[in-house]
Amino acid sequence: MRKSLYMNILVPLDGSDNSQKALIQACDLARVYQSNLILVYVVDKSPSLNLLDKKEYLEILRKFGNRVLLKGKKTANDKGLDVTTIIKEGNITNEIVKLAKNKKCNLMIVGSKGLGATARFFLGSVSNKLANNSPCSLLIVK
Amino acid sequence: MRKSLYMNILVPLDGSDNSQKALIQACDLARVYQSNLILVYVVDKSPSLNLLDKKEYLEILRKFGNRVLLKGKKTANDKGLDVTTIIKEGNITNEIVKLAKNKKCNLMIVGSKGLGATARFFLGSVSNKLANNSPCSLLIVK
Repeated sequence: MRKSLYMNILVPLDGSDNSQKALIQACDLARVYQSNLILVYVVDKSPSLNLLDKKEYLEILRKFGNRVLLKGKKTANDKGLDVTTIIKEGNITNEIVKLAKNKKCNLMIVGSKGLGATARFFLGSVSNKLANNSPCSLLIVK
Repeated sequence: MRKSLYMNILVPLDGSDNSQKALIQACDLARVYQSNLILVYVVDKSPSLNLLDKKEYLEILRKFGNRVLLKGKKTANDKGLDVTTIIKEGNITNEIVKLAKNKKCNLMIVGSKGLGATARFFLGSVSNKLANNSPCSLLIVK
């Protein structure tokens, strides 16, 4: 069999409906291309995060991230696909780009809009940054 | 058979190596998903185009666009795929977005960088604009 065009697919999740939609499209592609699916949630630790109770806030994000990954894993498993789930901490775009390089990803799939500014996830603007910085092809799902 | 995830795929071409790379990835996806492939070249008529001999310049672009589409068609035909080729004139991003809507495209595939500013094609920055304005999912090929 010829080598798959998309051997490793990375799906950054933020818990939004849009990232869930991206995941579902990723599952379809992974099935067709027999890809390894990697789901990642990044706990946002960018310096702009200026909160009185930052420690508690990060703890909440970690728990949320784990739940998001668990839900993502279930979505993929229900479609008969295995996944790797990874939680990272730092600047969202940087961590996603680093991971895509380390895992030799051929494709990254993101939602076109995240939870929005109020929720501090910004996957919308993250997808813009990834459009410029992704080391691999990027699919922005509408 | 279930309905294809990517029934209609739009590939804007600008004659660059990157858009050729995008086309090759589009051919792979079109084969797998049995999609209709639509290739488009847009003759840039944005108001920023301020040239003494605009008429002649546009004539050159039209000829170039037709050659680019012919080459794209050959690439796809060589892989056993039929394509529709379309040439448009106007603002590049607007024309691509309009066409994607009219043709009910589910996916648009572009190169991550175009010919660059000097050649006045800007598919690089066009892909940024499309990331925000595309009516359908957008794959940016690296």
